[in-house]
Amino acid sequence: MDLISTAFPQGKANRATPQTNREEGARARAALGHAAAGAHVALVSGGDPGVFAMAASVCEEIAAGPERFRALDVAVIPGVTAMLAVAARAGAPLGHDFCALSLSDNLKPWELIERRLDAAAGAGFVIALYNPISKARPWQLATAFGRLARHLPAATPVIFGRAVGRADESLTVTTLAAAGDAPADMATLIIVGSRDTRVIAREGREPLVYTPRAKEDAIA
Amino acid sequence: MDLISTAFPQGKANRATPQTNREEGARARAALGHAAAGAHVALVSGGDPGVFAMAASVCEEIAAGPERFRALDVAVIPGVTAMLAVAARAGAPLGHDFCALSLSDNLKPWELIERRLDAAAGAGFVIALYNPISKARPWQLATAFGRLARHLPAATPVIFGRAVGRADESLTVTTLAAAGDAPADMATLIIVGSRDTRVIAREGREPLVYTPRAKEDAIA
Repeated sequence: MDLISTAFPQGKANRATPQTNREEGARARAALGHAAAGAHVALVSGGDPGVFAMAASVCEEIAAGPERFRALDVAVIPGVTAMLAVAARAGAPLGHDFCALSLSDNLKPWELIERRLDAAAGAGFVIALYNPISKARPWQLATAFGRLARHLPAATPVIFGRAVGRADESLTVTTLAAAGDAPADMATLIIVGSRDTRVIAREGREPLVYTPRAKEDAIA
Repeated sequence: MDLISTAFPQGKANRATPQTNREEGARARAALGHAAAGAHVALVSGGDPGVFAMAASVCEEIAAGPERFRALDVAVIPGVTAMLAVAARAGAPLGHDFCALSLSDNLKPWELIERRLDAAAGAGFVIALYNPISKARPWQLATAFGRLARHLPAATPVIFGRAVGRADESLTVTTLAAAGDAPADMATLIIVGSRDTRVIAREGREPLVYTPRAKEDAIA
């Protein structure tokens, strides 16, 4: 009667065909139902199951479900979430305080996303953007970049990591001013630097992007 | 001439005797020096090397160091940072937008930490606190809880995870009102919920703490 969420080292952002939120709930309910019936169940989730992934769905279904769901053994196995995979590939952009924010407005109002972008950028957090864009959400990413530009210089480093950890991974380092021109999809994880984030240019090599541990510059 | 940061699955917060920031820079410089002299060097860092750990130090030393440091192959291998290990152990408290914040004021002014606490709690982020307390910083954690209490209800769930992943791991689930009474040290990672974070009580089992994917309540 174990229910185990297991993670692959690749991020959730690598999933080419995301499930809808309703599908995630149904999948969690099905797993819990099998476990309650006596099966050992492994529920597999990309990246870290606790970051915009299946672990919260499982907890939601336990909370809403029958009493027998609460009697199950549940173990969540942590993994490498997409922002850590992309950060490692780029250098150390999350080297100081940072946040993770989903741009999906399926489950929260867009006004709240803007408020969180304002709060995070205004206070100097590096920002990792999950679920940046989809067919159903074509304009949100550009709007988010515009919102962040109210708080951050045009030269702020921005990293687009796609499918990092897979054979077809790609990494683009650009600036906030030019970020709207970089291609992104649901397999892309974006890291927007703070005022402190820097780029080390290297001849014949990809640049290194990092955020120093020490705060030097004043923030607006 | 590779320089590889390698991570153990345990968090940085598990390190009983933290290095000073000066020691981290010296260690990174030493590793880069050996690599520049032709050695293959593995620099080992607890948790994820990119989260309040050695990867930023290495980048800082490359930026400040001689040109030959920029010619080195540097690979950062991502790992499971303490907040992901603690979150998995507790359920899914990072199930929605969240941030990671170091309470160490060695490298940034305390006023900036308070500003970030205000911004994060006010905008509804779940907050993971790294480096919560030390002999040199005895009052900061209680002050941070007081600051967060301006924004969050007294019943907000707070998780203290100590040495998670080790044989002597411990987990405490409490509330913001009572958080000041829970023991903490440099091996402790603390997760402060948002207004949406919930606790599922379970008979004869540890509670599950989670933050639903969907935003339901209004925030202040």
